[in-house]
Amino acid sequence: MTKSQNGWVKKVSIPKPSLQNNTADAERVLAALKPEIKSENISIDLDLLRDLPGLVREPNSSLNCILCRKNTHWSLIGLSPGEDPSPITGIAVDLGTSRVVLRLVNLCTGNILAENAFDNPQVSIGPDILTRIHHADHPEGQKELRALIIDGLNREILRLCRNCRLEPERIYLSAVAGNTAMTHLFMGLDPKWIIREPYIPVINRPGLVKAADLGLGLNPLARVFIFPNIGSYFGGDLIAGILYSGIHRRDETTLLVDVGTNAEVVLGNKNWLIACAGAAGPALEGGVTKMGMMAGPGVIEQVAFDPGSKQFQITTIDDLPPVGICGSGLIDLAACLFLSGMLDIRGKLVPDRCHGRIREKEGLKHFVVVSSKTSGTGTDLTISQADLDSLIRSKAAMYTILETISQSVGTTLRDLSTFFVAGTFGSFINPHSAISIGMLPDLPIESYRSLGNSSLGGATRFLADSDHLEEIDRIRDSITYLELNVNQEFMNRFSAAKFLPHTNADLFPSVMRKML
Amino acid sequence: MTKSQNGWVKKVSIPKPSLQNNTADAERVLAALKPEIKSENISIDLDLLRDLPGLVREPNSSLNCILCRKNTHWSLIGLSPGEDPSPITGIAVDLGTSRVVLRLVNLCTGNILAENAFDNPQVSIGPDILTRIHHADHPEGQKELRALIIDGLNREILRLCRNCRLEPERIYLSAVAGNTAMTHLFMGLDPKWIIREPYIPVINRPGLVKAADLGLGLNPLARVFIFPNIGSYFGGDLIAGILYSGIHRRDETTLLVDVGTNAEVVLGNKNWLIACAGAAGPALEGGVTKMGMMAGPGVIEQVAFDPGSKQFQITTIDDLPPVGICGSGLIDLAACLFLSGMLDIRGKLVPDRCHGRIREKEGLKHFVVVSSKTSGTGTDLTISQADLDSLIRSKAAMYTILETISQSVGTTLRDLSTFFVAGTFGSFINPHSAISIGMLPDLPIESYRSLGNSSLGGATRFLADSDHLEEIDRIRDSITYLELNVNQEFMNRFSAAKFLPHTNADLFPSVMRKML
Repeated sequence: MTKSQNGWVKKVSIPKPSLQNNTADAERVLAALKPEIKSENISIDLDLLRDLPGLVREPNSSLNCILCRKNTHWSLIGLSPGEDPSPITGIAVDLGTSRVVLRLVNLCTGNILAENAFDNPQVSIGPDILTRIHHADHPEGQKELRALIIDGLNREILRLCRNCRLEPERIYLSAVAGNTAMTHLFMGLDPKWIIREPYIPVINRPGLVKAADLGLGLNPLARVFIFPNIGSYFGGDLIAGILYSGIHRRDETTLLVDVGTNAEVVLGNKNWLIACAGAAGPALEGGVTKMGMMAGPGVIEQVAFDPGSKQFQITTIDDLPPVGICGSGLIDLAACLFLSGMLDIRGKLVPDRCHGRIREKEGLKHFVVVSSKTSGTGTDLTISQADLDSLIRSKAAMYTILETISQSVGTTLRDLSTFFVAGTFGSFINPHSAISIGMLPDLPIESYRSLGNSSLGGATRFLADSDHLEEIDRIRDSITYLELNVNQEFMNRFSAAKFLPHTNADLFPSVMRKML
Repeated sequence: MTKSQNGWVKKVSIPKPSLQNNTADAERVLAALKPEIKSENISIDLDLLRDLPGLVREPNSSLNCILCRKNTHWSLIGLSPGEDPSPITGIAVDLGTSRVVLRLVNLCTGNILAENAFDNPQVSIGPDILTRIHHADHPEGQKELRALIIDGLNREILRLCRNCRLEPERIYLSAVAGNTAMTHLFMGLDPKWIIREPYIPVINRPGLVKAADLGLGLNPLARVFIFPNIGSYFGGDLIAGILYSGIHRRDETTLLVDVGTNAEVVLGNKNWLIACAGAAGPALEGGVTKMGMMAGPGVIEQVAFDPGSKQFQITTIDDLPPVGICGSGLIDLAACLFLSGMLDIRGKLVPDRCHGRIREKEGLKHFVVVSSKTSGTGTDLTISQADLDSLIRSKAAMYTILETISQSVGTTLRDLSTFFVAGTFGSFINPHSAISIGMLPDLPIESYRSLGNSSLGGATRFLADSDHLEEIDRIRDSITYLELNVNQEFMNRFSAAKFLPHTNADLFPSVMRKML
């Protein structure tokens, strides 16, 4: 990546004062900057003014000016000698409910300097956001949650800086992408109304705030951009994801799905965007969310089946003896079971075809994926019919959401030429398997494109270009948010999607061919 | 005064949220404000966001919104229930080198609630600004000076609030008018370069800063507007004075003179303004400044002479027995002495005509103003020839500056129909006397208009109307600053003005008539 034309850092030469040019220090700096930013609308932070005379009277006053912008108003927030060897940096933050990822970026070059991830320390209060919001009902609880995430961020930022031999004072800008509730807890805003009718957040567009006001240990004048949300259920993490995917700039209609704690879906092109989130009421409670995904050493992440030998080939994380199975492995496994006839179209295990791998435990069928002889735990690794039922509900919920959003704009899933899959799910899932069980539509495999951590990607983009402020606003404003009403039609679709791959087999011709 | 259309407080009704209108709290407030401010460019301070849900969900959400503006960017800095009985206030500050004056103003009505004045606590470091700037050469000295003025302001603001039974949190806006050096010391900016060639301040337009960043104990989100300066020798106090005088809006060319520590002069009309300050180099060192003016109980402030009885009629402050004489009294006295022939045209005492009031002390003539029998000190109150010489230099400097600035734009002093005299000088001086000794030009007496504390007046104006931001910028930008070069021509004029009333008696026809 090269330095953006619209970066946050501008290098300027400041003319020396003289009896002929006796403009004040601040105004000489601003006069040099105005042509660069093409605006008259700029001021200097007070704390920086206090250092100004020393900086602009150095023999060589070529200066790196670190700028920030709130709507049309620019602020000069930092000055650094033109040849300063220490980089001027920004930090992108994916503020996840479970996991937080930090990325340190050189603001002048756009280069990524380091990355760091850690569990959201608020997990100690509750793994899910709902528990945390209830905990925040008491002001002390809200303070506690805020302190947990802010302290955690400060600790990890410090660690990241130490690894890069960088002073945290060299971080001038941050971009934070999180869901609406996480953003509220991070900013110290009451999240109470997010989960109570009519589900109103305190703010939709937090914009840029001072890092110091948030309690973040960056440069004292650093600013933090917090991605806007559309409402309580469509957060800044998704807006960042859209920015990163670029679907808002494409001619062709594209779908973006991000499966994290929820499944969130955006469909659109440069003219329009429609979005919905998977929190589709009690009917799907725990629907998309229960696929586990907790990856770790020895966890099975890929499964294949050899029809000849009737053996499963499994791949575990770090190639260790298997100890469990994560989401992508489970989808692979379900696909293998279904394609080989061990699972029927209702998703039920067929004992006769399971080659002696069925065990009954507490009245429930279990399928032995790895026997005790080869497992890393010394016991059989099994998947119960209940686990499979849960997966079927998840995949049906996912497909129903995709179908609903497509039909809402009069298109069909098969018309899509590009289908972005973001998040951990997108990185590890095998689209063949997801199609085989009817979780994802039956598109040519090359249509599926994994985006990785698109929230982090979007936050990183922000740090590269000040024009993204407007682009982010445009994205936010062009999205129509589709409330997923769990009505009869939705439930009918959901019921049809609970079959493997689907009651309407015509939707999955490639799967049908494999079954022949 | 009535509430300004462009005040800093807007009263709006915030619609309740509903499933149909599920915009966030912040955006509902902003949507109600945007038509009021006719701008889309507005954000809300983070600390205020934290209180927002509570405020906008009250049964009656008619709210007083306290706004601030930096260029085109508005900030919502305070919210108060529509029917709050406690006033929303601002504080105007005349930040004088010797004396600081505070004025508490109701921001909704423009009414003045209270006023308070105190000696600038920095006087303990040095009575003059030069000593203080040198003291600030050491960072600790600069900190000390800043702490003195900030602590002093906080103490007096608290006192003012206590007298009005007002919480300091109810002060949301302040406007501070001071000279460039005082402004720097107040902001914590290094004043070092103000007095060193090429005499460059750190900043010309400080604009609006957060009170908290300055250390002022107002509302935590309050903003402070600091009047801009033109350079090291033309400060925000004078810009505020021009705003208050209104000369920048008049068709006719008007002169404004403000005599404080220096004499500052502005000449102009709605099309142009030209200004100079009396610090005219070593030739006039202590020139205009040495007239004393330290008023107090028993100090003679007015003097008249009855040619019949040959007696002086004196008026003292608080009608106490006389203990000394201040500037206005001294000018009156000199005028009496000159008109009655006791002082010759060179300003020298004429013993033969002084009715036995001359005493010789240490080889110097002294004139007895009040004998020991009637004075409040038990000793004769006298004025020495040296005191008179010093007054003559002061009056000559003043007249020369006025003449120089007029001639620089091709006009003469006698063409002026209005002559504003600001400051304590303007409030107490008798224009008849000042004309008699040739300190002020010989204009019809009704041309002279006393403005009082015009800096404080300008700061008060700012609190009444947000449009003054632009007006102040326009004033600043339309001023041509005239450097008073002490060249031969200037010295010639100065020499001519050292006579009473002037070498060119034609310039003072009314004085000539009185002498007949």
